Amino acid sequence: MFAEKPVYLDNAATTKADVSALESIVKYGGELYYNPSAGYVKSLEIKKDIEEATDTIAGLLGASREEIIFTSCATESNNEAFECGIRNKKGNVVLSAVEHASVYESAMRLKSRGMDVRFVKPLSDGRISSEALQCVMDENTAFVSIIHCSNETGTVNDIQSLCAVAKERSPRCVFHSDGVQAFCKIPTDVKKLGVDLYSISAHKVGGLKGVGALYVKKGLNMPPFIVGGGQQNGRRSGTENVGGIIGFAKAALAYKDSAAAFDASKLRQYMAARLTDDRVKINGSEYNSGYILSLSFEGLRGEVIAHMAEEKGVLVGLGSACSTHVKSNRVLEAMRVPRRYAEGSIRISFSPHTTTEEVEYATEVIAEAVEKLRKVING
Amino acid sequence: MFAEKPVYLDNAATTKADVSALESIVKYGGELYYNPSAGYVKSLEIKKDIEEATDTIAGLLGASREEIIFTSCATESNNEAFECGIRNKKGNVVLSAVEHASVYESAMRLKSRGMDVRFVKPLSDGRISSEALQCVMDENTAFVSIIHCSNETGTVNDIQSLCAVAKERSPRCVFHSDGVQAFCKIPTDVKKLGVDLYSISAHKVGGLKGVGALYVKKGLNMPPFIVGGGQQNGRRSGTENVGGIIGFAKAALAYKDSAAAFDASKLRQYMAARLTDDRVKINGSEYNSGYILSLSFEGLRGEVIAHMAEEKGVLVGLGSACSTHVKSNRVLEAMRVPRRYAEGSIRISFSPHTTTEEVEYATEVIAEAVEKLRKVING
Repeated sequence: MFAEKPVYLDNAATTKADVSALESIVKYGGELYYNPSAGYVKSLEIKKDIEEATDTIAGLLGASREEIIFTSCATESNNEAFECGIRNKKGNVVLSAVEHASVYESAMRLKSRGMDVRFVKPLSDGRISSEALQCVMDENTAFVSIIHCSNETGTVNDIQSLCAVAKERSPRCVFHSDGVQAFCKIPTDVKKLGVDLYSISAHKVGGLKGVGALYVKKGLNMPPFIVGGGQQNGRRSGTENVGGIIGFAKAALAYKDSAAAFDASKLRQYMAARLTDDRVKINGSEYNSGYILSLSFEGLRGEVIAHMAEEKGVLVGLGSACSTHVKSNRVLEAMRVPRRYAEGSIRISFSPHTTTEEVEYATEVIAEAVEKLRKVING
Repeated sequence: MFAEKPVYLDNAATTKADVSALESIVKYGGELYYNPSAGYVKSLEIKKDIEEATDTIAGLLGASREEIIFTSCATESNNEAFECGIRNKKGNVVLSAVEHASVYESAMRLKSRGMDVRFVKPLSDGRISSEALQCVMDENTAFVSIIHCSNETGTVNDIQSLCAVAKERSPRCVFHSDGVQAFCKIPTDVKKLGVDLYSISAHKVGGLKGVGALYVKKGLNMPPFIVGGGQQNGRRSGTENVGGIIGFAKAALAYKDSAAAFDASKLRQYMAARLTDDRVKINGSEYNSGYILSLSFEGLRGEVIAHMAEEKGVLVGLGSACSTHVKSNRVLEAMRVPRRYAEGSIRISFSPHTTTEEVEYATEVIAEAVEKLRKVING
């Protein structure tokens, strides 16, 4: 039993770049390599292509062109949100205890500068409740950041309600949401959500690594994170990653179409049903994007399961790839997953390119590994 | 008379991406799209490929692997140098008056926060003299930034001497140099130069847009600019632009080889000799990389010359593409180029792919345009 090519179920549905993304990067790095900031016709044409791509991304978020800033990754977007979203503002900063490392570390940097940074504990299923958010906030809260869809568990937060509650508690607060795992997978209309800032990434939706974006609500007075030649209307300087941006837009459109025709939840439920028993916990709630399945096997070690699966050609995660080298799992800990379970955690991610056969095979491989390990432990 | 394809002599020698850069981005966005931060063999292999690319870039700078941070562009590198190079340090900041916009604006941001920011005036040929630097510095200078090779004029500064002078004046100062226009064109051994920080860009040497790097001297205590998952040993978080980084290294090697076999100065001198008379100024000194020729035509307008050249298929710049939309030219002004000359400035850039035929053709086109314009003006 061995998969012909690796069954890739890691990294929260990062996918191989869409062919449109690869074509774009080659086209704008090759024949159309002109700098979009120059004044001649060739450059103006490229500038127009970037504007069109901006419209596409804006459209997918329910935003308008001037509300989108392209960045080099969602980590930069999240850093920008924290560094610039509250610059020159006074008050405390509130975020959930289940954020991605780039949000968590951005907050810790503010804390190290003396800011009052407060964490909202999640429910045991990983969701943030309106009550918990209200409790931690006060009328001096200047900035709130709550992840839309968890990169660890797939749990989806009701950002619309949370944002409404936050604005009621502190009308002047800026509300940011990390939408990396939500974009193109679940509805992400930023106007409906009510957020001021929203981060997304290209390489989670078939774009290339090295591209992200930040939605900045019109009227929000936010200084730029990166200054210089004034590209992107002065809001993010640096020569645009032309091919990366245009490919991001094309790939996102393609991804959204594939996602609409794809039932992630069905694969997730299939796997969950076959792999869980009374010694296995599913981390996360029924409010799930369907794209991530986080499982904790009591008394086992996640990395051992992952390595055994890898030997059979199945690649699964241990939690955020961004935190692979961190010993304990901050997010599962915050969800109060007991240590004897948390240590036995693996994270399985699906993408619209994941096939039923791959999931069936992976399920069998993981089940076998778990069975073997249990036999060893029980002698 | 018309060029079959555009003769591209703009943007300070930006070139079409090298085929190795395009191959890398397709390879690591396609088949090898795995996240380098994960724990399985596929990812570890990619991590190794990134390390190899890092060694290549480090080698080209005379640095070692752990001294290189990959960024999304040189603008980010320059922002990082200013934001992090002096974080938690006290003292004044000194830079030349002929820096790239990303350095200038980074300094202005510090100034807006109340820092003492001082400018060193260039000699009339654009060079920064040791004496001028010494005059502006004092024993409280915490940070110095002097461009290695000007993106406007090609003028090369003697960074080795300037750095030595700076360290003598204020031993604790951090010395940064923007090496974007120097890298792979003139010697850039950072150990010989003595700098603490050095910025470079991929798309000026055949790499793709969206990739840059910052050399950070071992032992320099510098906090990260972008925080998160701890990629690049915690010094620049965010999933690495794998294909972009690997392609940068391959393209830089190829560019350096081409540059070694290429005589930019010859083309520059050819053009300068044919286009200058007593109503034309060459901006810049004999200390020139050879890759940039900045010409000012008295009483004419640079954008008109550029548009006339474009009609004949020759694309030249008006100054930094990053500042095309800025009315006056800050750098030429600092060099005390009289306004009646400065307004008639064009910037011609060469790359190892520029042919003698292209330069001959472009020279003819520009000479004709200038002649026509002079006739119109003189009636």
